[in-house]
Amino acid sequence: MSPTPARIIAVDTHDIRFPTSRELDGSDAMNPDPDYSAAYVVLRTDAADGHEGHGFAFTIGRGNEVQVAAIDALRGHLIDRSVDDLCADPSTLNRDLIGDSQLRWLGPEKGVMHMAIGAVVNAVWDLAGKRAGLPLWRLLAEAEPEWLVRQVDFRYLTDALTPEEALTLLRHGRQGAEQRTARLLERGYPAYTTSPGWLGYDDDKLTRLAARAVADGFRQIKLKVGADLDDDIRRCRVARSVIGPDVRMAVDANQRWDVEEAIRWTKALAEFDPYWIEEPTSPDDILGHAAIRRAVAPVKVATGEHVHNRIVFKQLLQAGALDVVQIDAARVGGVPENLAILLLAAKFGVPVCPHAGGVGLCELVQHLSMFDYVAVAGTTEDRVIEYVDHLHAHFLDPVVISEGHYTAPTAPGFSAAMRPESLARYTYPGGEFWAADLDKQKKGRAA
Amino acid sequence: MSPTPARIIAVDTHDIRFPTSRELDGSDAMNPDPDYSAAYVVLRTDAADGHEGHGFAFTIGRGNEVQVAAIDALRGHLIDRSVDDLCADPSTLNRDLIGDSQLRWLGPEKGVMHMAIGAVVNAVWDLAGKRAGLPLWRLLAEAEPEWLVRQVDFRYLTDALTPEEALTLLRHGRQGAEQRTARLLERGYPAYTTSPGWLGYDDDKLTRLAARAVADGFRQIKLKVGADLDDDIRRCRVARSVIGPDVRMAVDANQRWDVEEAIRWTKALAEFDPYWIEEPTSPDDILGHAAIRRAVAPVKVATGEHVHNRIVFKQLLQAGALDVVQIDAARVGGVPENLAILLLAAKFGVPVCPHAGGVGLCELVQHLSMFDYVAVAGTTEDRVIEYVDHLHAHFLDPVVISEGHYTAPTAPGFSAAMRPESLARYTYPGGEFWAADLDKQKKGRAA
Repeated sequence: MSPTPARIIAVDTHDIRFPTSRELDGSDAMNPDPDYSAAYVVLRTDAADGHEGHGFAFTIGRGNEVQVAAIDALRGHLIDRSVDDLCADPSTLNRDLIGDSQLRWLGPEKGVMHMAIGAVVNAVWDLAGKRAGLPLWRLLAEAEPEWLVRQVDFRYLTDALTPEEALTLLRHGRQGAEQRTARLLERGYPAYTTSPGWLGYDDDKLTRLAARAVADGFRQIKLKVGADLDDDIRRCRVARSVIGPDVRMAVDANQRWDVEEAIRWTKALAEFDPYWIEEPTSPDDILGHAAIRRAVAPVKVATGEHVHNRIVFKQLLQAGALDVVQIDAARVGGVPENLAILLLAAKFGVPVCPHAGGVGLCELVQHLSMFDYVAVAGTTEDRVIEYVDHLHAHFLDPVVISEGHYTAPTAPGFSAAMRPESLARYTYPGGEFWAADLDKQKKGRAA
Repeated sequence: MSPTPARIIAVDTHDIRFPTSRELDGSDAMNPDPDYSAAYVVLRTDAADGHEGHGFAFTIGRGNEVQVAAIDALRGHLIDRSVDDLCADPSTLNRDLIGDSQLRWLGPEKGVMHMAIGAVVNAVWDLAGKRAGLPLWRLLAEAEPEWLVRQVDFRYLTDALTPEEALTLLRHGRQGAEQRTARLLERGYPAYTTSPGWLGYDDDKLTRLAARAVADGFRQIKLKVGADLDDDIRRCRVARSVIGPDVRMAVDANQRWDVEEAIRWTKALAEFDPYWIEEPTSPDDILGHAAIRRAVAPVKVATGEHVHNRIVFKQLLQAGALDVVQIDAARVGGVPENLAILLLAAKFGVPVCPHAGGVGLCELVQHLSMFDYVAVAGTTEDRVIEYVDHLHAHFLDPVVISEGHYTAPTAPGFSAAMRPESLARYTYPGGEFWAADLDKQKKGRAA
């Protein structure tokens, strides 16, 4: 037995980049050539159990080093903290990080600095899950409502959601939770797939992948749109003819349009019965989304992967700007801010269908939706988690998709840990892959 | 004569920090101990004229190294660019920076990455002013309206302001511009001062500085509020009794409140006739500001120093959430985004009263307000630039305040350049000041 309580003794950061741009995986109207990347953080402790907390911010390549620098800037808030205290009440760390007034100036609560806080906070929740021996969704679903409410930062939310209202929602959510847990473990959580619809894929690949999606049991697919209207009309026609009238087809413009253009373009695609239009315009444009939603109904409006915090989600809901809330596990300030967003969505009665894909976003966000099902929303009706079949092999506890459903994870933690050999190989610029690649580029230039 | 066109050959960055927290200068309810800092950038060229472009992002201490890393990430977009092309049409650089999809993911258009773009873009405008031999306000005021409109990025704005409307505003703004330039050179631009009202100052210091502000010719002062209501009532009473009924007194809560608290607190201060309540809540809360404004009238609502881009300003104006638009020269994407915001404010008929202070914010933003007066708004009625008397001595072309007015700068450029000896002394952590200070701290700990 250790004579002193366990402490955080190291905050290791890694700049991890995958060369996804070479296959046009992940290509859309705004992001033609992403190199899916992670600013990755490992919290190490001196506890005898050897558990680590893993977390990351997701980026798409250049600038990942800035994201790593932002995580490094938080180190002083973590080193020497008691692991027991941290896991018993992670909100104490949140308050310190969000409340660091000098760092706050760099946001506030947005962009690089906020994503860094999210990475570190998520790493603490990963550690808390491992120490409790529970997958995160289950740790959350079995927590006392009073404790969960204490984890949430209600600052700037109380005109829409008070702690008392949140407590009522969570207490109500406990009714039938055990049956839902059993059902979740048996059937999993419904997924939809974006894999067929990347903008860089030709019609043959779209046809092949859309047919496979339906065969694999998915009841919703998604197509990227927004670069060229004639192409979009053709691709939507192809996809709809492959999947038939009953499988849902969402379309995603990745912020390409101004408000009026979004309305015009979405209406031009209406004949193919799109289920939702995702990110029709800037994620900052609350009033714009509200205007678009009024104009394009019954096509639903979805956004959230770039919504930077709970305050913007609050207003999207207050303004009636959304039919679908798309949380992202690694954009906002981590688990507690996503708890706030789930509770806001429940209060306003809007379903949550998370954004995922990238590096490890599926692994993380499944826990939040499963908690939402078991202990908040109480249903999976009209709810689906995005699924993209990229890069899962790099994770120690990768998502498992079966008949169009995410299988509930049972390993303790947040499923955030990448394989050590992947971390080593894809570290930028010194890892084996990049060292060889950059060397080849150099020789190519010299020749 | 140079045989090849001049190019950008270096992008030098500096982490500059001033130990302002030791005097409680700049203390407010949200920021108790800022160390005013700058992530500073110098663009060097191989032109024979020797001109450099200087720019910076303003931070308040910790994390300034992250801001510097973000500017470093932009270097590849600058090196080898033609100086003539860049100065003839700076918008080409803007489009490349804002349009870098991988870097865009880190915002989009917000936080650390967006401030880095602002620093670099402002440095280009500084260079353009020097090469034209004109102070920036004058370069802008004398530019062709068509050229100015081309500098603005209208993406996500066209539902509120089209390029055609902007052109009409700018053409209209030319009428009488020469007379206004003459008047500006003669009288300057009205200022207000925040120097008396920092939260860390006691009543004696408040009394003394408020009396001096009136004696110095200021017609508006500002008090920080929001930490303790009884203190605020006492301090407002003291200040109002010193300045009398005719000098305006603004109050500034620096985002401390939720919506309902903001309304309650502002009403409790109403007896002291505050002119505006500044940053009553989160800068992201457009609908919250609108609700507060409806409730606290006739007290005006002001915000902007933390508003991260033109899209949020657009909505604040669309929602009727503001009486006063507070641009900041170093928060958004530089001069062109501030042109968009000035034009939006003009379209909606809302006066612009910039945020300033910090490190060099007065030096920069005076140019934007002077351009606004000469060529857009056409008036200084109900318009004042914030003035704080900190750190000006570190600048080569510091602001000159005379009888409560900013004197129009006449030196070419954007007044952004810091003295080389200040850059050297306050570089963190290696500069002379910090090296000695950190050494002293180390010895203190060892003793």
